[in-house]
Amino acid sequence: MTFNDLNDRRGTNSSKWDKMEQIYGVPPQDGLAMWTADSDYPTAPCVIDAVRKAADHGVFGYSWIHPEYLASIQWWMENRHSWDIDTDWVLTSQGLGNAIALSLDVWSEPGDGVVIFSPVYHEFAHKVNKSGRRVVECPLVRQGETYGLDLDDAQSRLDGSEKLLLWCSPQNPSGRVWTPDELRAVATFAERNGLILVSDEIHHDLVYPGNTFVPMDVAAPDARPWTATLTAASKTFNIAGQRTGNMIIPDPKLRAAMRHRIQTLDYDPSALGVAMITAAYSPEGAAWVDEQVAHLAGNCQVFDAAIAEIPGLWSMPLQATYLAWVEFLGTGMNHDEFVRRLREDAKIATSSGPGFGAGGETFERFNLATQRARVEEACARLKHAFADLQ
Amino acid sequence: MTFNDLNDRRGTNSSKWDKMEQIYGVPPQDGLAMWTADSDYPTAPCVIDAVRKAADHGVFGYSWIHPEYLASIQWWMENRHSWDIDTDWVLTSQGLGNAIALSLDVWSEPGDGVVIFSPVYHEFAHKVNKSGRRVVECPLVRQGETYGLDLDDAQSRLDGSEKLLLWCSPQNPSGRVWTPDELRAVATFAERNGLILVSDEIHHDLVYPGNTFVPMDVAAPDARPWTATLTAASKTFNIAGQRTGNMIIPDPKLRAAMRHRIQTLDYDPSALGVAMITAAYSPEGAAWVDEQVAHLAGNCQVFDAAIAEIPGLWSMPLQATYLAWVEFLGTGMNHDEFVRRLREDAKIATSSGPGFGAGGETFERFNLATQRARVEEACARLKHAFADLQ
Repeated sequence: MTFNDLNDRRGTNSSKWDKMEQIYGVPPQDGLAMWTADSDYPTAPCVIDAVRKAADHGVFGYSWIHPEYLASIQWWMENRHSWDIDTDWVLTSQGLGNAIALSLDVWSEPGDGVVIFSPVYHEFAHKVNKSGRRVVECPLVRQGETYGLDLDDAQSRLDGSEKLLLWCSPQNPSGRVWTPDELRAVATFAERNGLILVSDEIHHDLVYPGNTFVPMDVAAPDARPWTATLTAASKTFNIAGQRTGNMIIPDPKLRAAMRHRIQTLDYDPSALGVAMITAAYSPEGAAWVDEQVAHLAGNCQVFDAAIAEIPGLWSMPLQATYLAWVEFLGTGMNHDEFVRRLREDAKIATSSGPGFGAGGETFERFNLATQRARVEEACARLKHAFADLQ
Repeated sequence: MTFNDLNDRRGTNSSKWDKMEQIYGVPPQDGLAMWTADSDYPTAPCVIDAVRKAADHGVFGYSWIHPEYLASIQWWMENRHSWDIDTDWVLTSQGLGNAIALSLDVWSEPGDGVVIFSPVYHEFAHKVNKSGRRVVECPLVRQGETYGLDLDDAQSRLDGSEKLLLWCSPQNPSGRVWTPDELRAVATFAERNGLILVSDEIHHDLVYPGNTFVPMDVAAPDARPWTATLTAASKTFNIAGQRTGNMIIPDPKLRAAMRHRIQTLDYDPSALGVAMITAAYSPEGAAWVDEQVAHLAGNCQVFDAAIAEIPGLWSMPLQATYLAWVEFLGTGMNHDEFVRRLREDAKIATSSGPGFGAGGETFERFNLATQRARVEEACARLKHAFADLQ
């Protein structure tokens, strides 16, 4: 059970562990890093073997986007997501963040409005702002124990200057798996408003039993002329450090514009990134992901049970992702106070709820992709840090 | 002597070997790949060890541009090039090609003229054209057995619309090591014409005895306000596949503009690339490079001696780089004919001379960064293919 073997990422140039003190003031000696979305346990053996094989060969010269790599992506989408893609649709990015940045760069202009549904992955708004576009924030609404869409409300917030919609599916930070009907409604909303629909589906493999992830392109194939899907093996296989992702763009015109930009900037994926992904997107990789999802489901169960025992705290039930979205509203504390308790008392570094935009003010996001013992330790510390609420 | 151990790169997703047939019609079964500028032998043991260590750890999550990495670059420039740099000056690119593309993107506009001295690295002109800038080609002049500058002639070719000068030092494809006086003259030429001077110094470590490479920033420190230097460990350590390079930019304004663009595009180097470079730029790495340069000097000697025995062929004496620049003018053949003999008779894939611009019409470029036995085999084939000239 490698998912539970305790390891030490401190001093391995892990930004999650080695920058925790600088950013959050949480000391690595006894702190718990539950912010950045990578996993603490090793990747799949087949991926490690690919790296060892490269080390044995020892020659790290120029590589290329070779047919086996593209075929492995095609195999994965077909076998894991019932998504029949053409290998010609695949362009390679330097990871999801870069793919979002390139999407803004290629398919919008400075000053254009970019629609997001918040709370959502904080980098959406950051990248929109950094690139000189304008965030048009449409709030998700509470729907039972999770979030839902209010597209009428969203429509009322648009003024016609918007060019792009950044969509997140499964949704980060809520872990929501959207239904095909919801996906079709979003595709129609994009069409009605003349928006390029960029669907970030990076968490697509980390879906819990009872939920079915459907790619936007499968739910709404008619939306191809205005849709691009961003994926990566980086969350699924814990290889974000390799900075390699994919853009799957069925529409020839959208794809030609993106390809031209990538070629002009002379982007090419790293040879090791390509080798690791080719090894990952395989039957061996798939079996390992199944084990990982079972491990994560167990972590969620342990974590949610502990949170439920702390009065005033509430964890949104995860349908997907390893990112728990925890509300502190019931504590009556302001954000500064509950975050102080997390960092100073519990010594846990979490991702800032307000950073995810409107709706995140009373939340923090906890990364559960770690060993079970670390989740249990986090639970014990949380109970202690909020013991006065008992 | 790992430099001479015969290995097989076919089927390892090496673009040099696995795309040779598609591009040149030279079959991998018995062809010799002497085009793309990477090496056939493995990288330094300390770099391979860094990859093995990463495989043993098995966690490939998010990394960062950490102080040890920057310190290793600083150490290398100081110890190998007597160049005292500040770690703040260093920005990271996705390799030299990407750094050139970003330089064009950040410091020029579509339609601007970009000055190059030809024949020169074919990607200079390709990238200028792809980005919608204009190539302003100034020819190098023959100076003894190598190339020299005629800056008066160059001046006469400019019309004031030029914004950037792409400079190559040591020079590819001629292997010329520029003198400090020449470098200062180029810096002054750039200043007089209001050009940002982008100095590609990627071959700086592969310099042969009797020649001294001097960085542009050392020769012309006064030129800092309009100069950026591009480097990488990729040629030196045969790790081009990792797509990681550096831009060393002392000037705060130039650097701020580049940093903004990199951040907007969400570029970050791969964790393994950073780990490999940190391991490479070390005393162990330096000792290995010294051995490699001795090996390459031997290869050059063998190659040049063989070329000298073939009437009509001439190899420009290399002061640096492993890229032999061979002239076929004396054969009286046109380009199609001598290239046909190389590909069909000798089964050697070389880089097209005309691709390097004006002055390259009668040349081909041969990559000598391979095992001695492969150089000897190439020599034997060349003698045979041009035997009728004897």
